[in-house]
Amino acid sequence: MASEDCPLSEIEVIRIIREMLGSRTAAGLVLGPGDDAAVQQFPSAEVVLTVDAMFEGVHFTLETCELRDVGYKSLATSLSDIAAMGGEPVCALVSVSFARAPEEREVRGLYEGLLAMADEAGCPIVGGDVTRSRGGMSVTTAVGGVAHPNGPVTRSGARPGDLVGVTGTLGSSAAGFYVLGSGDAGLRVKYGSLVEAHLRPSPRIRAGQALASAGVSAMEDVSDGLAMEILHICDESGTGCEIAAQDIPLSGQVVALAREAGTSPLGWALGGGEDYELVFTAPPDSFDEALESVGRTGVQATGIGEIKPAGAGVVLVSADGGRGELEGTGYDHFL
Amino acid sequence: MASEDCPLSEIEVIRIIREMLGSRTAAGLVLGPGDDAAVQQFPSAEVVLTVDAMFEGVHFTLETCELRDVGYKSLATSLSDIAAMGGEPVCALVSVSFARAPEEREVRGLYEGLLAMADEAGCPIVGGDVTRSRGGMSVTTAVGGVAHPNGPVTRSGARPGDLVGVTGTLGSSAAGFYVLGSGDAGLRVKYGSLVEAHLRPSPRIRAGQALASAGVSAMEDVSDGLAMEILHICDESGTGCEIAAQDIPLSGQVVALAREAGTSPLGWALGGGEDYELVFTAPPDSFDEALESVGRTGVQATGIGEIKPAGAGVVLVSADGGRGELEGTGYDHFL
Repeated sequence: MASEDCPLSEIEVIRIIREMLGSRTAAGLVLGPGDDAAVQQFPSAEVVLTVDAMFEGVHFTLETCELRDVGYKSLATSLSDIAAMGGEPVCALVSVSFARAPEEREVRGLYEGLLAMADEAGCPIVGGDVTRSRGGMSVTTAVGGVAHPNGPVTRSGARPGDLVGVTGTLGSSAAGFYVLGSGDAGLRVKYGSLVEAHLRPSPRIRAGQALASAGVSAMEDVSDGLAMEILHICDESGTGCEIAAQDIPLSGQVVALAREAGTSPLGWALGGGEDYELVFTAPPDSFDEALESVGRTGVQATGIGEIKPAGAGVVLVSADGGRGELEGTGYDHFL
Repeated sequence: MASEDCPLSEIEVIRIIREMLGSRTAAGLVLGPGDDAAVQQFPSAEVVLTVDAMFEGVHFTLETCELRDVGYKSLATSLSDIAAMGGEPVCALVSVSFARAPEEREVRGLYEGLLAMADEAGCPIVGGDVTRSRGGMSVTTAVGGVAHPNGPVTRSGARPGDLVGVTGTLGSSAAGFYVLGSGDAGLRVKYGSLVEAHLRPSPRIRAGQALASAGVSAMEDVSDGLAMEILHICDESGTGCEIAAQDIPLSGQVVALAREAGTSPLGWALGGGEDYELVFTAPPDSFDEALESVGRTGVQATGIGEIKPAGAGVVLVSADGGRGELEGTGYDHFL
């Protein structure tokens, strides 16, 4: 394997990436990797676009993540943004930087993860660039998709009386991050599903489309923790909200680990982030259909609260009936 | 101005960016900055996509560049990729990272440069993200556009007998980089147009579209130096080429500075890169029309050589008739 452990030139890196991407054929692809830009025939001209960057030492560390996980998750975060609009991803571009000449196994590991996510989502990688950076590697993913025929679902459409729901369970990613940070190999085996949730989140593309079809009024993905996302929706919609703490869906593993760790599983759900589930609002008469439409995609959805007038504030009601202001505990990169 | 010299939180950075972007209205914009993704109505569904990253300490240094120049140039590089396909840019996304909490004047400077380029190109910035990195700041720009009605112009369409042309003059960016690196204030005044060419390159969007309309067979932008671009076209097209050194267009300032610096202006043109001019090929019977069509966009275009069969090699013919292999002297990030 000696030949695989040598630092590569930029030309060699690009050749490996082109070879890995080139074995895929994409419907509607007019021009793939290797030219100045990619050209893709989209199913419609109402285009949804997003970009997300992940930096080593800030968003991930190679001490606990493999490069294939970094690749997988970086594309998942952009796909989750498309899902949160109810959109259909069409194709992706990936910009990668390395702080030093990478080895072949590093390039292959990263792109195996990227391609695994791209294949799962039916969103081929059609271009990108490779460059050098200082202080660590980074992956920036841009995804282009098409809007839902009903139009994009924004954060600003929630109205008082709408009910609030979420897909899946929350807090698993933060719990998985806790497990990785503990360095406890036994914990990692016992709570493998939480580590998996942190390293390989599933963007809820089908669920997002089903919710858009069901006519939800607002939607956002849970990247910064449920509390921040609820605050975003209320802020953009000009409303208040009341969330029932006991209705926030938690997996059995999250509850068990929180007990073992002597912490609150709700803290992970509200402030942890990176679950990449969807939080949405819908008028009462279409809320059940919204929940059922998510169910038909193989994911559970759960009602957790109600949108209120702005004056009512954004309130978390605890199991014992206590009321407290919901506080955004999401991460601020510069604080 | 004390309030402007404080490090900002992520929320404050995003608020400033949204305020700066929000004052623009864009034709066809369905949903601008502030949601999970942007939504833009494109003029057609054949979409051209590109992404480019610039890292502090690798692509620029804040010792010689102002942040407004960094912003301008980073978007220019992506727009140049769209130009090289003959495409029409529609909208841009910008992902920015700072190694520490930025000050307001830094955020504003960067986005003033980005917006100056966006306004000049008629390509509004409709979204993006802000994050922290290690080891320096970075700007990654993704641009979506639509393909030319004739289809995208690739690097692979050159055929033996086609003539080779370039827009503008070459080597100015590398010469400007030399001036900046000299630290000589007098030189910087004397050769201000070269410094400008390096800091604020003009993507040849109208020229690219004119060339696509004129039916050019291959096209590429000059980001890595003319020699590398010619080699790319010959490699992708499966051809050779003969370039006449004396026909490569150089500005008077480049020639004068090279004389003063005791170096060859051709070296800057062939190996320097970052000129963001277009190099193109066209059959002889449409070549004059291609040159004239560029002229009508206000830019001069010049014939510099001819495509040959693959066996002829890729040859540079000097003024005295000497023949040498054209060698790619472009920058490899990992060598």
